[in-house]
Amino acid sequence: MNPESSIAILAPGLLGGSLALAARHHFPSVPIRVWARRPEAVEDLRQIIPSVIGCKSISECVSGATLAVLCMPIQHMRAAVDQIATSQVLPELLVTDVGSVKGSVVADLEPVLASQGITFVGSHPMAGSHTTGIAHARMDLFQNAACLITPSEKCPSEAIERLRLFWTALGCRVIEMNPAEHDHCVARISHLPHVMAALTTLAALKKDTRPIPCAAGGFRDTTRVAAGDPSMWTGILHENLNEVLAVLTETSHRLAELIQILKTDNLVELHNFLSEAKKLRDLVPPSTKTD
Amino acid sequence: MNPESSIAILAPGLLGGSLALAARHHFPSVPIRVWARRPEAVEDLRQIIPSVIGCKSISECVSGATLAVLCMPIQHMRAAVDQIATSQVLPELLVTDVGSVKGSVVADLEPVLASQGITFVGSHPMAGSHTTGIAHARMDLFQNAACLITPSEKCPSEAIERLRLFWTALGCRVIEMNPAEHDHCVARISHLPHVMAALTTLAALKKDTRPIPCAAGGFRDTTRVAAGDPSMWTGILHENLNEVLAVLTETSHRLAELIQILKTDNLVELHNFLSEAKKLRDLVPPSTKTD
Repeated sequence: MNPESSIAILAPGLLGGSLALAARHHFPSVPIRVWARRPEAVEDLRQIIPSVIGCKSISECVSGATLAVLCMPIQHMRAAVDQIATSQVLPELLVTDVGSVKGSVVADLEPVLASQGITFVGSHPMAGSHTTGIAHARMDLFQNAACLITPSEKCPSEAIERLRLFWTALGCRVIEMNPAEHDHCVARISHLPHVMAALTTLAALKKDTRPIPCAAGGFRDTTRVAAGDPSMWTGILHENLNEVLAVLTETSHRLAELIQILKTDNLVELHNFLSEAKKLRDLVPPSTKTD
Repeated sequence: MNPESSIAILAPGLLGGSLALAARHHFPSVPIRVWARRPEAVEDLRQIIPSVIGCKSISECVSGATLAVLCMPIQHMRAAVDQIATSQVLPELLVTDVGSVKGSVVADLEPVLASQGITFVGSHPMAGSHTTGIAHARMDLFQNAACLITPSEKCPSEAIERLRLFWTALGCRVIEMNPAEHDHCVARISHLPHVMAALTTLAALKKDTRPIPCAAGGFRDTTRVAAGDPSMWTGILHENLNEVLAVLTETSHRLAELIQILKTDNLVELHNFLSEAKKLRDLVPPSTKTD
């Protein structure tokens, strides 16, 4: 059951657009207010969901909302929050985001809002794709996705519970952790795979693109996310630099180990390396999505 | 149009079983002869395709065949070929395989068969999955897959043409290259992604499995093939050691570059790194399969 009576979505791209579609589907009677930097983006969304209320400013968008969701790239969130902090808002307004990094985001945004008595709790729905933009929005993007919510120690438990109910009502599996733990986990489960997909693509094809026609499912899957938006990912990696560096340093040690195993043609060690990876990979539950 | 009048499939697992299914579907009147080390495997296949002719020995299987396809792991191919070389076979018998490495395989097998006047041409259908075994066989496994055929300089062009027609009739896109070029390409487009999937899994989860519940499509896809059979992949990497080492050394240099970029928080260079990978990844055509 959705606890919100009016939802503001700021900057509807792939995630915000999908959120609007999902919210409209699951909460047919709740007003959805939308603001975008480019007014055309709001018009695009209204072509699909005519009942969405287009707003000309962030202040207009959050006025009357009980929940505001920041869906812009991380580097633009602070400016949006500065606007919210100077707006007329309901006392029960809860602000969240959908950004991929939490430590720096929560530390940056929470005090600005708290100074005005507005509660912020970070969210990170683990949904998305290598595509971006509202044209790729999907109503079922959040269905069965993990959504990490990252309250700081100051968050009132009532706000955490409201946010949990909201994402659960959209079909997410909500997992609560603190911002630092979030950044540790996603560096390994999301940022690392992205970097590795890019690295694999460059190592395979930069010197020579001849192998491309031979590509099969293994290459396609292993490198799929390397087609993601470089600007967005530059921002994400920059925001989570220390955790990403830690896991890439670990990766570099394991790669050196593997090269040594291959140089000595040690088949027992090679088998152990691959078996250990398989055992860990087999612990990851399959997707419950159909795509 | 299939040029073969009798097909022998040696060791039907995922690939050989799928080959039997596809051949039965596309060439309904052509006899399919099958041999497996374990007689139960032949019986399993006959449960699905009753018209398959089960054979007790390799000699029995290849007798009367115009095409014999070696589907066992690479390290067992030489023993099978030694058997074929001492069998009574048709003068037009053409032997091929479905192994993932070609330089060592062709160099090892071709002379044994040539000494008996039997032609060998290597094949590598770029199909398969992280699963193994006949239980996962699929009739459409070869549909739209690239099939690399790797004639040596000694191959008669008539044999190459027959092999091309055979795989094309099963739905493959046939690409001809020499064995060394094959091993260069697949080290980059197939063996590298496998190693990187294993490496990503270990770096992400070996020290700490806490991030597992947060896994989404990015991690799942990037690491999918790490669930592959460690024994099979130990054999493949061992057979293509030099090319795999070359591309992993390249990978290790690029990873060191990237770590340096991140350590200096150089966002322009980071963006370039990701953009270059995206441009190359965008050159890879999407799968035409539905899975």
